[in-house]
Amino acid sequence: MDAGRLIPARRLRLGVVGWGRIGPVHASAARGSGAWELVAGMFSRDAEVNRRKGAEQRIDPERTYPDPAAMAAAERARPDGIDAVAVTTPNRSHHEIARCFLDAGVHVVCDKPLATRGEDARDLVERARARGLLLGVTYPWAGFAMVREARERVAAGEIGPVRQVHVEYLQPPPDGDVGWRDAPDLAGAAGTAADVGTHAFQLAEFVAGLRVESVRAELIRTIPGRRLDDTAFVSLRFEGGARGTILLTQAAAWNDRVVGIRVLGAEGTVHWSQAEAESLRVGRPGEPERKVVAGAGLHPRAAASVAAPRGAPDGLAGAWANLYREYAIAVEGLAGRIEPGWFDRIYRVDGSEGARGVAFVEAAAASSAGAGFVPIDAAP
Amino acid sequence: MDAGRLIPARRLRLGVVGWGRIGPVHASAARGSGAWELVAGMFSRDAEVNRRKGAEQRIDPERTYPDPAAMAAAERARPDGIDAVAVTTPNRSHHEIARCFLDAGVHVVCDKPLATRGEDARDLVERARARGLLLGVTYPWAGFAMVREARERVAAGEIGPVRQVHVEYLQPPPDGDVGWRDAPDLAGAAGTAADVGTHAFQLAEFVAGLRVESVRAELIRTIPGRRLDDTAFVSLRFEGGARGTILLTQAAAWNDRVVGIRVLGAEGTVHWSQAEAESLRVGRPGEPERKVVAGAGLHPRAAASVAAPRGAPDGLAGAWANLYREYAIAVEGLAGRIEPGWFDRIYRVDGSEGARGVAFVEAAAASSAGAGFVPIDAAP
Amino acid sequence: MDAGRLIPARRLRLGVVGWGRIGPVHASAARGSGAWELVAGMFSRDAEVNRRKGAEQRIDPERTYPDPAAMAAAERARPDGIDAVAVTTPNRSHHEIARCFLDAGVHVVCDKPLATRGEDARDLVERARARGLLLGVTYPWAGFAMVREARERVAAGEIGPVRQVHVEYLQPPPDGDVGWRDAPDLAGAAGTAADVGTHAFQLAEFVAGLRVESVRAELIRTIPGRRLDDTAFVSLRFEGGARGTILLTQAAAWNDRVVGIRVLGAEGTVHWSQAEAESLRVGRPGEPERKVVAGAGLHPRAAASVAAPRGAPDGLAGAWANLYREYAIAVEGLAGRIEPGWFDRIYRVDGSEGARGVAFVEAAAASSAGAGFVPIDAAP
Amino acid sequence: MDAGRLIPARRLRLGVVGWGRIGPVHASAARGSGAWELVAGMFSRDAEVNRRKGAEQRIDPERTYPDPAAMAAAERARPDGIDAVAVTTPNRSHHEIARCFLDAGVHVVCDKPLATRGEDARDLVERARARGLLLGVTYPWAGFAMVREARERVAAGEIGPVRQVHVEYLQPPPDGDVGWRDAPDLAGAAGTAADVGTHAFQLAEFVAGLRVESVRAELIRTIPGRRLDDTAFVSLRFEGGARGTILLTQAAAWNDRVVGIRVLGAEGTVHWSQAEAESLRVGRPGEPERKVVAGAGLHPRAAASVAAPRGAPDGLAGAWANLYREYAIAVEGLAGRIEPGWFDRIYRVDGSEGARGVAFVEAAAASSAGAGFVPIDAAP
Repeated sequence: MDAGRLIPARRLRLGVVGWGRIGPVHASAARGSGAWELVAGMFSRDAEVNRRKGAEQRIDPERTYPDPAAMAAAERARPDGIDAVAVTTPNRSHHEIARCFLDAGVHVVCDKPLATRGEDARDLVERARARGLLLGVTYPWAGFAMVREARERVAAGEIGPVRQVHVEYLQPPPDGDVGWRDAPDLAGAAGTAADVGTHAFQLAEFVAGLRVESVRAELIRTIPGRRLDDTAFVSLRFEGGARGTILLTQAAAWNDRVVGIRVLGAEGTVHWSQAEAESLRVGRPGEPERKVVAGAGLHPRAAASVAAPRGAPDGLAGAWANLYREYAIAVEGLAGRIEPGWFDRIYRVDGSEGARGVAFVEAAAASSAGAGFVPIDAAP
Repeated sequence: MDAGRLIPARRLRLGVVGWGRIGPVHASAARGSGAWELVAGMFSRDAEVNRRKGAEQRIDPERTYPDPAAMAAAERARPDGIDAVAVTTPNRSHHEIARCFLDAGVHVVCDKPLATRGEDARDLVERARARGLLLGVTYPWAGFAMVREARERVAAGEIGPVRQVHVEYLQPPPDGDVGWRDAPDLAGAAGTAADVGTHAFQLAEFVAGLRVESVRAELIRTIPGRRLDDTAFVSLRFEGGARGTILLTQAAAWNDRVVGIRVLGAEGTVHWSQAEAESLRVGRPGEPERKVVAGAGLHPRAAASVAAPRGAPDGLAGAWANLYREYAIAVEGLAGRIEPGWFDRIYRVDGSEGARGVAFVEAAAASSAGAGFVPIDAAP
Repeated sequence: MDAGRLIPARRLRLGVVGWGRIGPVHASAARGSGAWELVAGMFSRDAEVNRRKGAEQRIDPERTYPDPAAMAAAERARPDGIDAVAVTTPNRSHHEIARCFLDAGVHVVCDKPLATRGEDARDLVERARARGLLLGVTYPWAGFAMVREARERVAAGEIGPVRQVHVEYLQPPPDGDVGWRDAPDLAGAAGTAADVGTHAFQLAEFVAGLRVESVRAELIRTIPGRRLDDTAFVSLRFEGGARGTILLTQAAAWNDRVVGIRVLGAEGTVHWSQAEAESLRVGRPGEPERKVVAGAGLHPRAAASVAAPRGAPDGLAGAWANLYREYAIAVEGLAGRIEPGWFDRIYRVDGSEGARGVAFVEAAAASSAGAGFVPIDAAP
Repeated sequence: MDAGRLIPARRLRLGVVGWGRIGPVHASAARGSGAWELVAGMFSRDAEVNRRKGAEQRIDPERTYPDPAAMAAAERARPDGIDAVAVTTPNRSHHEIARCFLDAGVHVVCDKPLATRGEDARDLVERARARGLLLGVTYPWAGFAMVREARERVAAGEIGPVRQVHVEYLQPPPDGDVGWRDAPDLAGAAGTAADVGTHAFQLAEFVAGLRVESVRAELIRTIPGRRLDDTAFVSLRFEGGARGTILLTQAAAWNDRVVGIRVLGAEGTVHWSQAEAESLRVGRPGEPERKVVAGAGLHPRAAASVAAPRGAPDGLAGAWANLYREYAIAVEGLAGRIEPGWFDRIYRVDGSEGARGVAFVEAAAASSAGAGFVPIDAAP
């Protein structure tokens, strides 16, 4: 809404594969960014459901496809084919679908985790790099302006060297059936550690501006009958010696979600939580805590992530829209249609973070199986 | 995103007149609702600015118009003409522009206040009614799911008969020049009492489900040099005997905005504030306060206003999008393209509320000039 | 607990007249201050209740008196007689009892309001001054360290000239019978405006550091059957032109109490509320809000009011104890037993504030009866 | 202050050994309970400091002692000798001093941790039991009414079987020198894990109503130059299979203290934090979170722990006073001077919790040295 918020000169064209709970979030975010329109999709393997969802989304019936390969081929052949595809299927099929579109030269946005196996995630990153394509992995917490402000303040040295990073992510079990998320063959090496652990891990690295070198984890089943972890306790070792924890659960018997991060530096602290998503708490010894909000001297990259007028909340939709706005900038930038300087104004919420997330899941699972601290694979 | 959230079968076409600070908010809300696309506009009286803004919004140059009358005429003549226009100019011109489109058979969404004079506001309401057209006035606070939940709980008798209603709306002066908002000939009978007082007044009536019969007000200039009020203290008398207050200021020297409403009933209370926009505080004597949030048994009309997954904030953008989503339902309903039952699922955030807002401003100004309690005109 | 917190060299001796709900609070506060012991009392006109309460408080039976006059006379005659008496009876008898002890040369601490008639309050202030005696009126909100910090910051000019002061005080009706508080002959000119209005008024003047010149008020009965106001809306005019409001109710059907004050200056703001009693919110344009707490550079008079270690709450008991600690300093100072410099370290939570409170009640009642803005009597 | 709050018929006599930062807190709490007076002490090994502190506290000079043994002997010989002693010296000397008084037949209140070695702590518990004496260890967080309410609700099965318990305790380094707390020979096996870890561990067991069977811990030095841990990450295994974490640091570079506990049951949750010490958050699936406060149907043992009137904070001082009030009840009860029924109304914040705290410290230190999960010694 302000001068710092680029909108590409044309509206980019998005396709979607999958739908379920998260597909509509991608579609809303893309539209809300002002930069994308949804023009093609493969919504379901059930032909009737596929047709109906396509109609609801006002997709041209001939661009509602029966499978990803057909969609990639047909869209590639059109002069007005999609610029990018959003992969919103269950984790297990991310790799195959994303690869199919990358190989067709289509930019890819993929829901997290990027894959269920580290090698598959790395494969996607390599393919995207080789072809100069976007591989965005949607970590929406990193889209909040105040999470970005936290990162910028840490990066600017405002809290001194980082000593500790603590993330908590506590939510109830999903309504109804936990479904494929508790099925080892579909979800990957872990349940909660994959489903929300990747969010927490990315948040830790993103805000601290440091890489985790190794993790020790306990993956725990607290709900009787579960096959995969619904809870995890994780200890983190960062490059340079900082330490941290991640506390994860999807077994809280409440109607809420707690997501928060504290970074403790030698000279100050930052604290963000979803419950006060539009502000950032900044502490220093012997000083009043400051509640940083929009309008109070934000770093440019955080300020450019604010849409609502002063004091009003942008919400999770605003955070998601920031991701899709930046994907549009990236697509235009990769095509040379905007000045390279724009790249400096956005975050690389990109494929490498996706691959690191999968590496985290694998390391946590290995640690929990008895291996002590396990290094995070030298991900891309 | 859930079954209760209708999206019309086609995307409706929106035009905009004006831009400034609030035009982009309307455009985002319309897009974010998933129901509208912006296809025409008159953005500025300055031809070059008009052209540039139109291009930024990817409007066809031939649908970027030099004045409202030309726009109304040309769009009316097109087979793919706009369904509705959003009027986002300074208050003074709302009446003339809105009338022009209503007379051309175009639905109108108008920023608040609907007009600067009560008679002009009533004129618009009458014209819209006579032609069966939408006249939506954007009071976005009423778009928050939790404000709606408050209204539904009060309406359901959960807090017993309403005894008191208190609204506060405190914000800083605008950055830079206060502009036409402090110019008596452009802003109308009041400054702050019009600019944010209309929000507060609508919120009071909307949540309480009661009409204000009369008001006593002090319109106050606390910032040296101001010509119109930057602050107002208002006492309210509701039909049936309930009492209330509105505290307004645009002179708070901080970086924040406080918006809140408390309704005190004989058997309980509800409290909503922007600072915790995604929850509603419900009190009863001798019981723990309950923090009502999405997922915890909301009334259907509130539940249908929630977009984000559990625990995550929808923000002001979500509230605005709710308004535009409902305008689309109204437009389709007025055309007989959806079942009438849908009308029961939305709120009449409509022209009559706009006219009542203007009546409030006039009554407050008259009271402040020495007239004691002044009745709110029997607005439509 | 720190060097700035004087404890007199001997423990002072306190008597109490009355008991009910508030007498025990005075007794606890006196003990909690570390400066007083309770040694005499007249707890009830019912001889058996009087005896029993005295025994519970471990008062020597011969110092448990049947009436105030006997108590004043007997204590005056003892070498170890009380230094001060706490008057905790219903409002109606404050004047007679306090006068009786002042005339006997005993320092007086009196619960608010100081009297039910302005002339009686002024009479007490004059008698105390004439005899060089303490006349402390217990306004405990002014005992919170953070309320004091607010006052000091305003006094130091940190927020610039004060432009607005807003106080809210919302609580439920008392459990059980409202009793003498709703009886015009016992409570005085007003109900809620006296019972909690005096708190709110003192808080406004104390923090703003300005005197209210006149008030306009509506005293309102919202609970059917009430004889006196349970609610009041008040508009304030301060010396120098600042404006303000007080919103009072004892009719909120919840289980809570809201007490808060905002002072808006030309260059900043302060905000304190009971819900976050141990911190002070300080705002400035374009800056993050600061949450001032103990340990973060408080003004000496506020710092001396903190007892708990960092981050822990002192609570209402701490605020009350601050009052009694300062009464002890005042008593010792009036007797010349400590250096006069100590007087600079305490607040005059004294009789003149008590008399101003009563003047406020009378002015509010007169205004509500139709008199428009009514001046606050030139109280002492 | 209410009927449920016993005050012994006589005021009990307390002595104190040590002073420093925490001695004054004990003295205030004892006085604030209304049940104790401070009559004897050994404040410092420095004779002049000892004399001066005694005078400040208005202790009879002949009851200001040069060493604990002399104090125990002299007080035992007096007809008005102390009922109990508060041991507030550095951890290292707790055992010797407490033993000295227990052997003299004097009740003991000891600051935490009870000792620096598990066997010393157990020795004290055995001596107290053998002689029928009080051995109170001051865990003040367990004195908050709302922490007690949490315990009662969990005990009543309101949240179903406990599955997870998470405690966090984050504070800055002490002002000035960290002193003996970082000296291995004075502080015991751990630094922060002893100093605040014992608080956190007691809180976990107290609220959950479950014993921890074993712990895995990382004791970490994050501040350069430290000899003992300033930070600890702890994983808990409870009897019956519940799991939990404790996150401890005294290295947060801010001006705050975060103390909180969440207990997640199969059917609900409770959450208490110091930042909102006067309320308890209670969650259940699909229901609004309830904010439980005084006046809203508390369990009797929690209700009896509330002193302030509705809505007002009791603060940390109130929590401490609750401990000393209960010590008085225990002393009178052990002497047969009150009916045994009173014992049911108080918590055994007693020596066994002290010994378990020391056992936790030893287990955590052993685990951190490489031992994996280490059982908590079968403490008394």
